[in-house]
Amino acid sequence: MARLVLKFGGTSVGDIERIKNVAKKVKQEVDAGHEVAVVVSAMSGVTNQLVDYCKQIAKVHDQAEYDAVVASGEQVTSGLLAIALQEIGIPARSWQGWQIPLIADETHGKSRIERIDTTTLSDNMSQGVVGVVAGFQGVTEKGRIATLGRGGSDTSAVALAAALKADRCDIYTDVDGVYTTDPRIVKSARKLHRVTYEEMLEMASLGAKVLQTRSVEMAMKHHVRVQVLSTFEQAAGSELPGTLVVDEDEIVEQELVSGIAYSRDEAKITLIGVEDQPGVAARIFGPLTDAAINVDMIVQNVSEDGRTTDMTFTVGKADIDRAVQVLEKSKDTLNYRRLVSDANVVKVSVIGVGMRSHAGVAQRMFKALADRGINIQVISTSEIKVSVLIAEEYTELALRSLHTAYGLDKA
Amino acid sequence: MARLVLKFGGTSVGDIERIKNVAKKVKQEVDAGHEVAVVVSAMSGVTNQLVDYCKQIAKVHDQAEYDAVVASGEQVTSGLLAIALQEIGIPARSWQGWQIPLIADETHGKSRIERIDTTTLSDNMSQGVVGVVAGFQGVTEKGRIATLGRGGSDTSAVALAAALKADRCDIYTDVDGVYTTDPRIVKSARKLHRVTYEEMLEMASLGAKVLQTRSVEMAMKHHVRVQVLSTFEQAAGSELPGTLVVDEDEIVEQELVSGIAYSRDEAKITLIGVEDQPGVAARIFGPLTDAAINVDMIVQNVSEDGRTTDMTFTVGKADIDRAVQVLEKSKDTLNYRRLVSDANVVKVSVIGVGMRSHAGVAQRMFKALADRGINIQVISTSEIKVSVLIAEEYTELALRSLHTAYGLDKA
Repeated sequence: MARLVLKFGGTSVGDIERIKNVAKKVKQEVDAGHEVAVVVSAMSGVTNQLVDYCKQIAKVHDQAEYDAVVASGEQVTSGLLAIALQEIGIPARSWQGWQIPLIADETHGKSRIERIDTTTLSDNMSQGVVGVVAGFQGVTEKGRIATLGRGGSDTSAVALAAALKADRCDIYTDVDGVYTTDPRIVKSARKLHRVTYEEMLEMASLGAKVLQTRSVEMAMKHHVRVQVLSTFEQAAGSELPGTLVVDEDEIVEQELVSGIAYSRDEAKITLIGVEDQPGVAARIFGPLTDAAINVDMIVQNVSEDGRTTDMTFTVGKADIDRAVQVLEKSKDTLNYRRLVSDANVVKVSVIGVGMRSHAGVAQRMFKALADRGINIQVISTSEIKVSVLIAEEYTELALRSLHTAYGLDKA
Repeated sequence: MARLVLKFGGTSVGDIERIKNVAKKVKQEVDAGHEVAVVVSAMSGVTNQLVDYCKQIAKVHDQAEYDAVVASGEQVTSGLLAIALQEIGIPARSWQGWQIPLIADETHGKSRIERIDTTTLSDNMSQGVVGVVAGFQGVTEKGRIATLGRGGSDTSAVALAAALKADRCDIYTDVDGVYTTDPRIVKSARKLHRVTYEEMLEMASLGAKVLQTRSVEMAMKHHVRVQVLSTFEQAAGSELPGTLVVDEDEIVEQELVSGIAYSRDEAKITLIGVEDQPGVAARIFGPLTDAAINVDMIVQNVSEDGRTTDMTFTVGKADIDRAVQVLEKSKDTLNYRRLVSDANVVKVSVIGVGMRSHAGVAQRMFKALADRGINIQVISTSEIKVSVLIAEEYTELALRSLHTAYGLDKA
């Protein structure tokens, strides 16, 4: 017997038939002898509708009231799933954030979980009652409803799994696991059986939209074993059907590279002819920070003439116009010769904890891209990943080449 | 300065524009120096949608979970109205039943209010913050959400007004007050400025769908002055625009008859040739009670032959088929000769506390109807009303005749 937390997102509970389908999946786990808590999102479309109502009334509105409004979506789903479970003979009851209670801080709209008192919920589960928890929401010390920000139901689920000391947290979604790369682009992509938290974090933040970054961080911190799997495909046999996100020591044979991620959400800016002297980077990035524009990759060329250099960096595609505006406004103080921007770029990254102990991982990447005539514009590296910025038109070619180069293709 | 509770129903908050309109009405009261709490229903259509979801999953479902689902509708409106108020400069915050708390008993789905702890809400109001209260909902001692049954927001509002010792509870609706009779039928119908709780109770239960019976009972018990008025018409001048429902001693010049109500929701059954002996009524109405069919008017004719008599009574139109079925099944034990049913009837009632001290009120009714050739099929009376059952086709004629006969026509 294990203790499980199952999480179902908005698409999984998108209509009444799907809620009934979720109830059947929960029943399978209960019938297998497990103690189960289920975390649910709002039915797909509901949260957007509620957010839209708030905006229609006031562009800028009290986030505490926004929270009261939008948290209602998860409340509805939790009650409906409890009814659906009871209807097929599974004892169940719904839990709102304030009923557990799940205490969250007072940064309404993007509140962080402070603690969860699972005493009563846990007692209920021990007595065989499935706990159906409204995700995305908690209650502040002052007794106000607080929501955890978009995608917060993943975070609710992982935090609850940690507090309940659950054996596993299963995140049901519309994909059946984490792949070596995007299977829509690379046909030979394989589903990973296991991946480490660190790798998952890199994949999540690099654009593989499977799990919310925050929830992976929390899972890593509390050593919660997380499985990503599909709501819409039936598990075959007794093996875990999805991808398990776990500590590194749970992975016996570590691959050199686990996956290749990409993000089209980048745009490149180059400042040509900036002075090559101390403080210039601070002068450039200060105004961008003030405008709340995040800078990702940064490269500063070696100065040829000893006086001026070029500075290249990337910002989110949505921020490119604003970034250019800010930099042009500061042209006099920054004292650069010319600004070039390019939104037709993509960031491709190879990720793997195995590269910590192996040399030549980056080199293999550069060679594979060079063999295809793909020019690398910017490079950045971390302990477990190498990212390059290339022209967007090469995305598919680059992914396929790298997937083969690192031996990730299906047998 | 007064303390007011304002209640807005589903139509009044049916969309975002209407919620903004409600905010303006609340602002007028705040600007006039009053301390205000507002009770809101769900946006029209929302509760039906949520009830439908529950039914789609399970015809018979856990009422506690049903409550968690449907209470969300009022939660949304309360948050949205708080935002709308803040947007026009009025400090406001939303209150869910569990936040106040409004403690309700555990008969989920039609829970009754046990007590309201208004300490914090009242402090907030004293500091100039409008309390926007989600109607229709409370919380049980066990911390579960409970709803007060359909139309429960009226009850929430009156109970809250009592607990807050409010000077008045204004029920905003889509009619502008209580009329001497249905103004769609009788053009000369007048709006009543004041009406007693007892009269309002009779009017409510007799089919004038202005206020929920339960809320009037509660207002009477706690001496809450209730005003019924329109959300969609602007009040003219400083006088109260609607109808005030108050204690009898607040009404200086009491009319003999205050209003004439009617209900088409009645059907008549006559059992011909039942034995005229003790216990026969119990034998007839026992099976109907067992089938949860309410019987309203009952008349037993004088026995002509000393052995058999006729028994006539009315049931709700929706119950007529079931009632006939039950009675035909019991034909042998009831031992009647023939059953006649008639759904083409209407109950017309004249109502007025003034008739307690005046004779001849019923007589005037009988004469007015006789003058028009309208046959009275059944009569029933109470201290402050006389009701007659007549053929449905005479409804309009009867209402107009009685309205004139009691001197209620507009000057």
